[in-house]
Amino acid sequence: MFDLKNYLNHKSRVVNDTLENILLSTQQGETINKALKYSLMAGGKRIRPILCLAATEAVDGNPKDALMAACALEMIHTYSLIHDDLPAMDDDKLRRGKPTCHVAFDEATAILAGDALLTMAFEILASVPFENNGQAAKWLQVIRIIAIAAGSRGMIQGQMLDIASEGRRLNVSDLESMHTLKTGALIEASLQCGALLAEADKAQLGFLKTYARNIGLAFQVADDILNVEGNPEVMGKAVGTDKLNKKSTYPSLLGLDASKQFAQKLIHQALQALETFDNKAEPLRAMATYIIERKR
Amino acid sequence: MFDLKNYLNHKSRVVNDTLENILLSTQQGETINKALKYSLMAGGKRIRPILCLAATEAVDGNPKDALMAACALEMIHTYSLIHDDLPAMDDDKLRRGKPTCHVAFDEATAILAGDALLTMAFEILASVPFENNGQAAKWLQVIRIIAIAAGSRGMIQGQMLDIASEGRRLNVSDLESMHTLKTGALIEASLQCGALLAEADKAQLGFLKTYARNIGLAFQVADDILNVEGNPEVMGKAVGTDKLNKKSTYPSLLGLDASKQFAQKLIHQALQALETFDNKAEPLRAMATYIIERKR
Repeated sequence: MFDLKNYLNHKSRVVNDTLENILLSTQQGETINKALKYSLMAGGKRIRPILCLAATEAVDGNPKDALMAACALEMIHTYSLIHDDLPAMDDDKLRRGKPTCHVAFDEATAILAGDALLTMAFEILASVPFENNGQAAKWLQVIRIIAIAAGSRGMIQGQMLDIASEGRRLNVSDLESMHTLKTGALIEASLQCGALLAEADKAQLGFLKTYARNIGLAFQVADDILNVEGNPEVMGKAVGTDKLNKKSTYPSLLGLDASKQFAQKLIHQALQALETFDNKAEPLRAMATYIIERKR
Repeated sequence: MFDLKNYLNHKSRVVNDTLENILLSTQQGETINKALKYSLMAGGKRIRPILCLAATEAVDGNPKDALMAACALEMIHTYSLIHDDLPAMDDDKLRRGKPTCHVAFDEATAILAGDALLTMAFEILASVPFENNGQAAKWLQVIRIIAIAAGSRGMIQGQMLDIASEGRRLNVSDLESMHTLKTGALIEASLQCGALLAEADKAQLGFLKTYARNIGLAFQVADDILNVEGNPEVMGKAVGTDKLNKKSTYPSLLGLDASKQFAQKLIHQALQALETFDNKAEPLRAMATYIIERKR
């Protein structure tokens, strides 16, 4: 039986150590570095980098080769949280049980810390030593995939839709479109980059795309469910806020039971997409289940 | 006699047309695209992209090869202006004679439009078609140079220092450090990237670095002088604001005449650095003079 807890612990540690080292080697200003580090090392679940590394393993690659892509993905995820939490956006005061970046520092520093993390992600992607020029072309491809997923046709557009939806009741299809952009795009990029760096073939990339789309959406459905029945102490943030803010969520549109069934169905589809993969895809299979069973 | 006005007009048009085309091919959300375009096409002087293209020409390269680097630099410059203008930062209402992005749209949209431009810069740098893998390695190098210049060891740290200096009187050395990071780093990167993409040799890169450092600082001294004696109608923004905000500037520390002499000295040093270049460096020479003689 695959030990997911052990796998997640080990991989988180590798990602955390690498992120710490990157921060040490890119120091300049004291305040901006403190703010960067505060948010980047705030105990995130590291889901995107671990999915990236697990995709590399699933296609028989060495996860070390994808480590910088994994770290860049976490930097971009963290920057997006810092900016989303700002007063002009979601105005959140608490994240992962700690004051959000603009509360712990100030708004200007939080904006710049987000900008710096986004920029640093591309710096580290462009700084990986490569043995031959063919690898250089591959890293350019990774940069392109991540930039498109994080940009105005992906995550940023998702956040625009999320802001625009405030106070409006969305239908399920609009809700899905929004989440596909806001969280799905970067999750899909995580798996694509991990697989690409391990020379995955077209069929494998296609299956991983299907896997990514399904777990990406399931992740969001699970988040919505946790906002209804999660434990705020375990989650490190308030629950019930979606209802309070009259946000359209899966539970509010489908009901709680149907939302859980929907999440199950998505995970089933994700697992089906991995059918042709051997036991090296066990981490990806276990993570699919983890995504809807997690408590935070 | 080299016709700088004609050169700037021509190059601006090329950069503007290319930026327009990039925006057309990267559309997704209506609002975010409007906000992006509003700031990116607001009539900027295009100094960084033109310096990039002129550096390519100075080392006998084809400016077409550096066009995407030029556009990426302008995107990054524009994103930095959008974020610097935010209420949490400089709280500026007017830029290039038009309401700033967060005034014309709203704060959330302005933050995201800045994020999107920064991300798009790296997308286009990673999307340039290349004929061989050696060129791929070169584009990675360009991405790295630009990311370092724009990041927490460059432009972002400069903005942090600028914010921290509010209400404090800096000495000339602190002022120089701040500007070297805030504007100098990206100007230096503009010239380095243009030259690198044209296969410049080490000596040429060294001379262009000296040129860049001197014009970068001269640019800032000239900005400070314009804030004292510029014409607000020509500049499209208010003057006298530095004095009002008790900002440390070259005129406030050195006096107006000594500031003008200092700018002249910097330009002289910039021109000296180009001594070994032939007449293909005429645009760079003319731009050095333009930078301190400009009226906006």
